[in-house]
Amino acid sequence: MSEEFRLTYVHEMAEAVQKLQATRDKVGADSWELRVKNQTPHCKFGEQGICCRICTMGPCRITPKAPRGICGCDVHGIVGRNFLRFTAGGAATHSDHGREICHTLYASSKDGAYKVKDPEKLIRIAKEWGIQTEYRDIYEVAHEVAEMALMEYGKPFGVSRWLSRAPKHTRELWHKAEIEPRAIDREVSCSMHMTHMGCSSKPEALVRQSLRAGLCDGWGGSMCGTEFSDVLFGTPKPIETEANLGVMNAENVNIIVHGHDPSLSEMICEYAEDPDLIAYAKSFGAKGITVSGVCCTSNEVAMRRGIPMAGNFLQQENVVLTGACEAIVVDVQCIFPALGPLSKCFHTKFITTSPIAQMPDSEFVRFDVGTAAEKAKAIVKEAVENFQNRKPELVYIPDLKRHATVGYSVEAIKKTLDTVTNSQVDELNTLKPLVECVRSGVLRGAVAMVGCNNPKVRPDRSHIELMKKLIANDIIVVASGCSAQSAARAGLMDKRAKKYCGAGLKRVCELADIPPVLHMGSCVDISRMMILVSELAKDSGWNIGQLPVVGCAPEWMSEKAVSIGNYVVSTGIDTFLGIDPYVAGSSEMLYWLTAGVRDWVEAAFTIETDMEKLENGIIEHIEAKRTALGI
Amino acid sequence: MSEEFRLTYVHEMAEAVQKLQATRDKVGADSWELRVKNQTPHCKFGEQGICCRICTMGPCRITPKAPRGICGCDVHGIVGRNFLRFTAGGAATHSDHGREICHTLYASSKDGAYKVKDPEKLIRIAKEWGIQTEYRDIYEVAHEVAEMALMEYGKPFGVSRWLSRAPKHTRELWHKAEIEPRAIDREVSCSMHMTHMGCSSKPEALVRQSLRAGLCDGWGGSMCGTEFSDVLFGTPKPIETEANLGVMNAENVNIIVHGHDPSLSEMICEYAEDPDLIAYAKSFGAKGITVSGVCCTSNEVAMRRGIPMAGNFLQQENVVLTGACEAIVVDVQCIFPALGPLSKCFHTKFITTSPIAQMPDSEFVRFDVGTAAEKAKAIVKEAVENFQNRKPELVYIPDLKRHATVGYSVEAIKKTLDTVTNSQVDELNTLKPLVECVRSGVLRGAVAMVGCNNPKVRPDRSHIELMKKLIANDIIVVASGCSAQSAARAGLMDKRAKKYCGAGLKRVCELADIPPVLHMGSCVDISRMMILVSELAKDSGWNIGQLPVVGCAPEWMSEKAVSIGNYVVSTGIDTFLGIDPYVAGSSEMLYWLTAGVRDWVEAAFTIETDMEKLENGIIEHIEAKRTALGI
Repeated sequence: MSEEFRLTYVHEMAEAVQKLQATRDKVGADSWELRVKNQTPHCKFGEQGICCRICTMGPCRITPKAPRGICGCDVHGIVGRNFLRFTAGGAATHSDHGREICHTLYASSKDGAYKVKDPEKLIRIAKEWGIQTEYRDIYEVAHEVAEMALMEYGKPFGVSRWLSRAPKHTRELWHKAEIEPRAIDREVSCSMHMTHMGCSSKPEALVRQSLRAGLCDGWGGSMCGTEFSDVLFGTPKPIETEANLGVMNAENVNIIVHGHDPSLSEMICEYAEDPDLIAYAKSFGAKGITVSGVCCTSNEVAMRRGIPMAGNFLQQENVVLTGACEAIVVDVQCIFPALGPLSKCFHTKFITTSPIAQMPDSEFVRFDVGTAAEKAKAIVKEAVENFQNRKPELVYIPDLKRHATVGYSVEAIKKTLDTVTNSQVDELNTLKPLVECVRSGVLRGAVAMVGCNNPKVRPDRSHIELMKKLIANDIIVVASGCSAQSAARAGLMDKRAKKYCGAGLKRVCELADIPPVLHMGSCVDISRMMILVSELAKDSGWNIGQLPVVGCAPEWMSEKAVSIGNYVVSTGIDTFLGIDPYVAGSSEMLYWLTAGVRDWVEAAFTIETDMEKLENGIIEHIEAKRTALGI
Repeated sequence: MSEEFRLTYVHEMAEAVQKLQATRDKVGADSWELRVKNQTPHCKFGEQGICCRICTMGPCRITPKAPRGICGCDVHGIVGRNFLRFTAGGAATHSDHGREICHTLYASSKDGAYKVKDPEKLIRIAKEWGIQTEYRDIYEVAHEVAEMALMEYGKPFGVSRWLSRAPKHTRELWHKAEIEPRAIDREVSCSMHMTHMGCSSKPEALVRQSLRAGLCDGWGGSMCGTEFSDVLFGTPKPIETEANLGVMNAENVNIIVHGHDPSLSEMICEYAEDPDLIAYAKSFGAKGITVSGVCCTSNEVAMRRGIPMAGNFLQQENVVLTGACEAIVVDVQCIFPALGPLSKCFHTKFITTSPIAQMPDSEFVRFDVGTAAEKAKAIVKEAVENFQNRKPELVYIPDLKRHATVGYSVEAIKKTLDTVTNSQVDELNTLKPLVECVRSGVLRGAVAMVGCNNPKVRPDRSHIELMKKLIANDIIVVASGCSAQSAARAGLMDKRAKKYCGAGLKRVCELADIPPVLHMGSCVDISRMMILVSELAKDSGWNIGQLPVVGCAPEWMSEKAVSIGNYVVSTGIDTFLGIDPYVAGSSEMLYWLTAGVRDWVEAAFTIETDMEKLENGIIEHIEAKRTALGI
């Protein structure tokens, strides 16, 4: 088998989708490919970030004839305020998701829908926070931890509790730069205040607050999201799954879960395995029930349950276009409102569940902790009953899927490294073997590939081609979010993909029995990567800023990605963006983001829309870090 | 004297400014009048709210050819998300200002720069919140109250503590509509999350959250700002002052305070009265030191100290153009970045003081509670020393000012009403006399005039003409923010302005010895108006939605005004906006804002840019309410 393995090409994925587009045209539906045509060219003012709508004296636009807005704000202030608001939008979004998880933990109980599945991790965090754990019921501990976590969103004094996990040097940089985040929501509100009409217009100040708002996400809200999702639903460990549209099963009832918050999808998965509901599905002529995922909800359930991944962000309409989707059940974020009208062209039920994400042309089944089980069951039942409404002439599922091993939490990476450790002489449960690989040059470095798809570039291509180039150069890739799904769909998370690696990385893959691209989770899980680099720094004796490690979001589109960029850079990791975050209009903002911040946090952004230059830039950066370390 | 009194016309104000514009041209400076020309016409997409920049797939703009954005969001979703973000920006801004006041209260001490000036009010609030007050040091109480207030920004559970001040009927409406605000910052973050790419696009849901975000401001952050400013700096009571550019004194050192947070300006005022510094000013040839205010900082110090009001929002450049401004010292919000380059054309020092509001071409003197006194002293000293740098040939102060009686807090209004009460038979310290005037028809009703200036209409004209029309119709006006300053500059806060009133209101003004337009404070102080209507409802037995009371912001420009609009409407008061909040592009959003919300909160918005229609609409609305009450 192994010799036959090859990666799926991007053009093969595109071809498979073409037939779905024929269905789309047949039923008279719309899809993003068509809407992109209608929306192109984009407004140049907006693209450059030089349009301001913050007050109603405007909107104002900067031109050579009009170098200042009505209030007198110059182009740098306008771009800077827009950038900070963009960051705040992302930080708020991730963090509010994390808050929901904290509330779910607070409501967890021995007999309820939500239980503590990883008590060991809970106890570890409780001890970290000085909470008594001995002789106590695990749920008592859970509730105390949850309440402390919720206080992180609004405590009147002090900085984020999670910062203590960062290396001392990093914490000192943050303190000196005055970017230690205070309460999570406070940083969001403060960012909105700073960017209000007639507040800050100085790029330096706006960039500083952008870093702080990013940090309140990565070292605050997102970390809450990741850590307590692990406590509730289990800390991921390597698990086998499959990826791409071919995971849908024409003979089964297909339920797609889509969004970000695992609280809903976990329950849907539970009930999709219910023997009564499976029998019920059979009574309608289906052979069973297949749940598969889209976007980060998919990452969440793939890592913990091996639920297959139907696709990433720009595939969301395609799952409906297969004609074999009985229900697409969504929670929050990155859900196309287009799914409303699109599902009406098919038998598909488009079910929204969160008060945060309500859309026209959807069925709203309000989901909450108290009624989670019954609502999930009702949704699965509704999907099953909808099987009979399928129009067979519209059904086509592209025969495209790849095997993937996913679930590399930091805990799982350490356990994997233990298998290559000489337990006679070496310390267990550390990242030291990885440090040794890097130090020796067997691995040149690591890249964190993250972020969405964006029609501004050919979907998935940048993710996949970049990863192929990196692993060929002995650079290991950790991936999350839609980037991880690109990798999985291409086959890069198949252990056999080691054949595409340079000799060093190939050897590492063989010894550790891992794929060359490690799936670390959803977009909130980039907080895992922060822990990973922090522990790498501690285990190596290097500062994070010295590590040959880079972050890259080549196809991002969401505000969350900019928030992530801000905390990754703040943590000391150079970050490469393949899409411009609407800052091209200001030379000063470009200076601060790509150079100025380096004086504060020992890292900066690179914004490069040319993919070849981006690739080369990353590799050069990693080699330069190695040279500086003398390795 | 009294017979000579007349109001200042708007054209007189405009004429006075013309000479300043000649100075502007002489020194080659810029001003908003010129920038408006450069920025006109505005982008039609932005003006209608139909442009979306929330993710980087766009920007997307809705046209007949492109009815949906790339994600599939329709025009209603785009306008709705923009509206909610606009509201969140305002709510965050007001509330973050309120938070600073809470922190100042927390840092207050017997011997420090900040003291409790109104212990009675503090104790009243402490009792309201169940805090023990007896046998305790007032600062111990202050710190406990402050900490509880700060928790309102981030408490994990429950709704705003301040809601209990609202009438039961109102609270029930809020509960049923699910718009009771939770922690203040949470509503801001939640609003940002809801409007993230792929979250809510349903106008009904977005409008509901807009109301809730507004309520977290008016019945949360702004109320904290008002109440604890009173505790720290004194609850306003009627005090005499003057208004318009003529309050600046060519023979004195002129310091302008501008912004919103009184913590800075209070200290500046203290030191401007310091005999040593006055002597120091004389040593430079000045006759003394004049502090005057611009924008809401001006309202704060006018109400508490009688500090004259140089002007409102669109006057801020004019104070520099007088050539007689030694320093313009600013805190946060609504400060033109234009003051940077403008001040460079004169000897004026443009001093920014808040980390929240940093601007190019300013001198940044970082202000904080710990160093407030020394920083304020240094700023006054710097202004004094700058007197010698004045260029006499550029000095021109328009000879235009009006007398004003300001300082009508709710407490002051009640005390004023006590003077017309028959203390033998009537209850003291209530609003019942006011209710009786309304019931009998001596007063037809009341209008809360609020909001900024906006070059989209002739500055101040709408405020002043509307107020003249209202008082002539026996409708009493309460005013705050830049609207209040328009009134003061025109002379409408002079008690002699009663001559412009209808017979009923004139009689009330005579009996109670008040001007027909009552100054209730700055823009955060619109929370005072919420208390006022709540008590009116309780004292009358009517629901707030039944009262012949209207809110009106004819010239608004700031996000704060939209946040205010949302909480005023939510409180049951119909609100008239003279400027469109970028929602014209969506029929559904217009429906929800101007009609749909009435089912939830018994009030709605009216958006009317035709001033005559706005006037008539308000009067008709008040008469209709009277008819419905049968009075």
